[in-house]
Amino acid sequence: MTTPTTDTSARSDGRRPDELRPVTITRRWLDAGEGSVLVEFGGTKVLCVASFTEGVPRWKKGSGQGWVTAEYAMLPRATSTRSDRESVKGRVGGRTHEISRLIGRSLRAVVDVSALGENTLVLDCDVLQADGGTRTAAITGAWVALADAVAWGQRRGAIKGSRPVLRDSVAAVSVGIVDGVPVLDLPYVEDVRAETDMNVVVTGSGLFVEVQGTAEQAPFDRRELDAMLELAAAGTTELTRLQQLALATDPAPRP
Amino acid sequence: MTTPTTDTSARSDGRRPDELRPVTITRRWLDAGEGSVLVEFGGTKVLCVASFTEGVPRWKKGSGQGWVTAEYAMLPRATSTRSDRESVKGRVGGRTHEISRLIGRSLRAVVDVSALGENTLVLDCDVLQADGGTRTAAITGAWVALADAVAWGQRRGAIKGSRPVLRDSVAAVSVGIVDGVPVLDLPYVEDVRAETDMNVVVTGSGLFVEVQGTAEQAPFDRRELDAMLELAAAGTTELTRLQQLALATDPAPRP
Amino acid sequence: MTTPTTDTSARSDGRRPDELRPVTITRRWLDAGEGSVLVEFGGTKVLCVASFTEGVPRWKKGSGQGWVTAEYAMLPRATSTRSDRESVKGRVGGRTHEISRLIGRSLRAVVDVSALGENTLVLDCDVLQADGGTRTAAITGAWVALADAVAWGQRRGAIKGSRPVLRDSVAAVSVGIVDGVPVLDLPYVEDVRAETDMNVVVTGSGLFVEVQGTAEQAPFDRRELDAMLELAAAGTTELTRLQQLALATDPAPRP
Amino acid sequence: MTTPTTDTSARSDGRRPDELRPVTITRRWLDAGEGSVLVEFGGTKVLCVASFTEGVPRWKKGSGQGWVTAEYAMLPRATSTRSDRESVKGRVGGRTHEISRLIGRSLRAVVDVSALGENTLVLDCDVLQADGGTRTAAITGAWVALADAVAWGQRRGAIKGSRPVLRDSVAAVSVGIVDGVPVLDLPYVEDVRAETDMNVVVTGSGLFVEVQGTAEQAPFDRRELDAMLELAAAGTTELTRLQQLALATDPAPRP
Amino acid sequence: MTTPTTDTSARSDGRRPDELRPVTITRRWLDAGEGSVLVEFGGTKVLCVASFTEGVPRWKKGSGQGWVTAEYAMLPRATSTRSDRESVKGRVGGRTHEISRLIGRSLRAVVDVSALGENTLVLDCDVLQADGGTRTAAITGAWVALADAVAWGQRRGAIKGSRPVLRDSVAAVSVGIVDGVPVLDLPYVEDVRAETDMNVVVTGSGLFVEVQGTAEQAPFDRRELDAMLELAAAGTTELTRLQQLALATDPAPRP
Amino acid sequence: MTTPTTDTSARSDGRRPDELRPVTITRRWLDAGEGSVLVEFGGTKVLCVASFTEGVPRWKKGSGQGWVTAEYAMLPRATSTRSDRESVKGRVGGRTHEISRLIGRSLRAVVDVSALGENTLVLDCDVLQADGGTRTAAITGAWVALADAVAWGQRRGAIKGSRPVLRDSVAAVSVGIVDGVPVLDLPYVEDVRAETDMNVVVTGSGLFVEVQGTAEQAPFDRRELDAMLELAAAGTTELTRLQQLALATDPAPRP
Repeated sequence: MTTPTTDTSARSDGRRPDELRPVTITRRWLDAGEGSVLVEFGGTKVLCVASFTEGVPRWKKGSGQGWVTAEYAMLPRATSTRSDRESVKGRVGGRTHEISRLIGRSLRAVVDVSALGENTLVLDCDVLQADGGTRTAAITGAWVALADAVAWGQRRGAIKGSRPVLRDSVAAVSVGIVDGVPVLDLPYVEDVRAETDMNVVVTGSGLFVEVQGTAEQAPFDRRELDAMLELAAAGTTELTRLQQLALATDPAPRP
Repeated sequence: MTTPTTDTSARSDGRRPDELRPVTITRRWLDAGEGSVLVEFGGTKVLCVASFTEGVPRWKKGSGQGWVTAEYAMLPRATSTRSDRESVKGRVGGRTHEISRLIGRSLRAVVDVSALGENTLVLDCDVLQADGGTRTAAITGAWVALADAVAWGQRRGAIKGSRPVLRDSVAAVSVGIVDGVPVLDLPYVEDVRAETDMNVVVTGSGLFVEVQGTAEQAPFDRRELDAMLELAAAGTTELTRLQQLALATDPAPRP
Repeated sequence: MTTPTTDTSARSDGRRPDELRPVTITRRWLDAGEGSVLVEFGGTKVLCVASFTEGVPRWKKGSGQGWVTAEYAMLPRATSTRSDRESVKGRVGGRTHEISRLIGRSLRAVVDVSALGENTLVLDCDVLQADGGTRTAAITGAWVALADAVAWGQRRGAIKGSRPVLRDSVAAVSVGIVDGVPVLDLPYVEDVRAETDMNVVVTGSGLFVEVQGTAEQAPFDRRELDAMLELAAAGTTELTRLQQLALATDPAPRP
Repeated sequence: MTTPTTDTSARSDGRRPDELRPVTITRRWLDAGEGSVLVEFGGTKVLCVASFTEGVPRWKKGSGQGWVTAEYAMLPRATSTRSDRESVKGRVGGRTHEISRLIGRSLRAVVDVSALGENTLVLDCDVLQADGGTRTAAITGAWVALADAVAWGQRRGAIKGSRPVLRDSVAAVSVGIVDGVPVLDLPYVEDVRAETDMNVVVTGSGLFVEVQGTAEQAPFDRRELDAMLELAAAGTTELTRLQQLALATDPAPRP
Repeated sequence: MTTPTTDTSARSDGRRPDELRPVTITRRWLDAGEGSVLVEFGGTKVLCVASFTEGVPRWKKGSGQGWVTAEYAMLPRATSTRSDRESVKGRVGGRTHEISRLIGRSLRAVVDVSALGENTLVLDCDVLQADGGTRTAAITGAWVALADAVAWGQRRGAIKGSRPVLRDSVAAVSVGIVDGVPVLDLPYVEDVRAETDMNVVVTGSGLFVEVQGTAEQAPFDRRELDAMLELAAAGTTELTRLQQLALATDPAPRP
Repeated sequence: MTTPTTDTSARSDGRRPDELRPVTITRRWLDAGEGSVLVEFGGTKVLCVASFTEGVPRWKKGSGQGWVTAEYAMLPRATSTRSDRESVKGRVGGRTHEISRLIGRSLRAVVDVSALGENTLVLDCDVLQADGGTRTAAITGAWVALADAVAWGQRRGAIKGSRPVLRDSVAAVSVGIVDGVPVLDLPYVEDVRAETDMNVVVTGSGLFVEVQGTAEQAPFDRRELDAMLELAAAGTTELTRLQQLALATDPAPRP
């Protein structure tokens, strides 16, 4: 990076290509919820609430295993123009389903459902304000809410035994190619201009959980794919650090 | 009230029967939305966002009049136990419809739709945390968001002419009879115990827009009705003052 | 009322301001239904059918208490122009939900669900012809159908014990302010012109169950509210008398 | 029929095998509706309302032809046990759709849509009480309501020209084989016991519009089919006479 | 038939009025499905798959009887112009419901549900290509798939006892009157021109299960009805032969 | 790969890890559809039909650009146990939406919508039999159907100008890690056992359109990701060859 000035000037908010937006993770944002986190990636604000209930859906009963699922939604005016509510339309759209499923899969990849026992964790990720990267912010925040809810279940004795329920942490970030330059953590203005958009979900130990790359405008070659994967690895390493910091520095857990 | 100690002891949070919970009205809580207000009545937090669009629904075209409508919803974990999302259930429940209609009617009562011209204002009231009185907080906050959105439309020139669009302000509060005592602004723990529950919507000039009293446990007599109406009148007078204060002291309007 | 001539001339059908429309309550209008009543308030005709079934919904099982609920609907051509069926639209509208909930609450206010035991009463109120006041006619007729169905359950032995199931009767009437004059029991032509519209549900002993006043055109002051409440009290006293008369004079109960 | 005594004894209500139940056709049963008929076949009561509107659905515009359609529905307690409302279930069931389509086809078979001009007739057939043969009663009553609505459209001048809109009348009746005996116009108790059930729609001039025979319990042979068709022909001849009588003797048309 | 030349010239594909289109019945078309048949009536191709599951729906439990049901659907481009998917529209249309019910009734007419025991057979009939007569092809093919699934259940021992489950076979064909001539097995081009359209379902022993005749353009008289019934009887006799041939000549049953 | 014998034995069907299942692409499988292809990847059979219509959805009108979209669905018994129809459930599931969106995006990546002009192409991909890899087979087959439909539009003159509409071809394949070994084109039995599952969409010129990797059981590292990407590159190169062969050797295009 001998010409940082040039690179920097490529981003609307003055960031370097490999720089995250300001990230904040606020735990216990609500009184309700066994874990509740407001996560912000720049202007993107997602409220992630974990609900812990004893018991599992019927088809899991007697399995000795727990269940973790997620639901993602956007408030109607999270975006610059208002969208109709899915409750009013009477059906959940394809994008919403797809992201809900992605969040659920990402969290389940790091949960030991046998150690969880027959308990259910539902993660509600509601986007209050959307400025790109809502699904990656949701995964990153939801894991922290999940960690709080698991700790709650252990203190309550609903989770039995001493095996760790969380095998690892998980975080996610978007990467893309904008004007030919691979960049990290795209806000909305970059997202719409990106030739390629990729969401990468990575564990705390650096393993991939999901790699979802889409050529929005132009198919990409192997070299570009490698550059994006490297940016994502560095970005999620930083997000992992911020998740651990949030869990370490917050005040005493809810009684 | 010669025995304030006794009366005060009747409320779980130590308030006097005629005392509101701490109320905060935070304007411009989001970047999007021509008006966006986070209103808090104690533990109840409602995000009220006004969306201004030029034009009106088909059935109003050519009338020269604008349209104001509202949609109310609750996040799944706004309450102490999680509720299923209405989008997932595929239908909006009766309570949601009823409150959405109430908010819309309350706001339309103080809007001069001819002065608004053929413009549409949609008020989204999403309950982030529910501790009783969500509909009254929503009306009180939505009016402030509406005022900001009307001002935005006037600055933009979308609202033409100099006639005032807002004929008055509007605010709402709950009253009820708990253990035989008429009380103002009920939190959830009082709401479930109340013999009677009443929501009263009042204009800034003290006129009634809606009076909705329901005998939850025992029918009530005329004397109790009068006592509740008086509490409501005093409560909405104070809420009107807080609305005006919020509009007066906030920083410069969004450009 | 020193100038009755003037007042009377204000109403399209020649009634005095404090006069009900002709009310008829016809019991056993259908062969099916443990209680079935055709109630008419002038041109408004509502068929109210009570269905008694032993057992309660799952969430009430083992409580020792019964369940009373109501569903309100309009035939498509109950009104002067045809409306689409809600079954065809695939969703029940807000107004329908709201009125169904109101009828259910009004009836439950006078039922002792413990004395009812684990039995369910569903009240179907289908508007055959609508000329204003459909919800108040529905409540008034539904209570009579309910009384017949409770008697049926007692004769069958499905309701056990000797405690009265009905603590009181309940009736409802609309009041409003039309051209500045408070009037009772508004037909459609007055309803659309009313500045304020109020539905009041009152028990046989004169206590309020619901008070729902809405400023349709102009907010109303306390004096107007009081005038409307007095008209409603007198109107429901008369409706109570007609309900008792219907129950007293009808032929022998269905075997 | 050499043994009428035996045959008669086979029917629960003492009718001869070839006898209709008492049929009444009451015109102008509602104030609204360009035609409104209460038709009764014994205990079966169907309210048939014709709504006339100028104009046609978009896909018919400019064709010079009108449109006739029908919707059939049952009130929840039309039957001996209550059924859930289709509006509440959120979907119209297969049986409802099928009967609505049958009524529409039957009426269109006798309407000259070119003579009708670009006008729409919607026939709502709501079953108030069901005791077998609801679809055949609906067709028979709907045609009378249709005739009234067509006359209304002609008086209003909405239907132009002097060509007759109705080419013929149409009526329908059920026939079946019960305990080996072909019988006409089955009430519910016979319907559930019938080996074969057939609905036959016939014009005033004796031509078939629909023949729908279903082996409910045992397939039927050609001889049985012929016997049923003869009963149906005689039954619809009588229904045609009653339709003409209703149209001839009713008071002056609605202005 | 003294003038075959004239008769033949009446049909677009050169068939005689009493001639079926080429019919093929291909068993075991899929790897899955206890019976799977591709049935072709000329250009009409329907995939009929029978799913055998042990157990019955809740309302049949303990009855000792099995359950047979069918679902019919069309692929979006089975026809010459594309139709919207019913899954996307969110509701199953009236025609689809009606045909599903017809297929189910036709099959149940020849099944001894007591001999079947508490087992369920679902017949899925998906139209891959539609050229008239899709419902009659579906019934004809579904019966063969059903026969294979019943045999599978017997080999597996899920169907107990030695009583025959199938009392008879069943097949169906369309007949109609085109340009005044009664014709058998109408392709789409004839179907749209037919004055009358009739679907007839007949057992292997020649008894009627369903007779559904509809006057599409002009009501029909008794003589025309008789001519159509005779064509249908001959056509279904031939289809019965082809069903038996398919069952007789196919390779060994699936293990 | 020094021990091919060992590797080969790892696959249930005896294939080498880098070997595709037998692939067949049958064009013009239906009479309807401007392109219709039955594509088979081993036991997976998908019917891909392209519907060409002139004109575009409202929101694209006047843009000069065309629109390409896809809908994916499964027949109820495509799998070893029957699934409920989405039309009957009244909603399209998350997985269906997600795959429909993937197919649409993959095809749009190689279409020049300006060269297409204001025409719409809908690709229906219906899975007749599912044995793993249904989405990748669908993309591979849909592109061939698309090519036929584009050629049809050009012959008809609906697509104007000489610019190529298809900038490239596109094909897709699944890869995964089963028992630690990266393998190509997974059938169902491998799919359920895979630690990681990846779908890769690649253009004819070897560029990536979509890379979707999911850790089904264990997160994967960069080395494993690279191994899977190489298998996918080789597999799609072979699929591209088969697509070109199908287009080259088929009989003359539909007139």
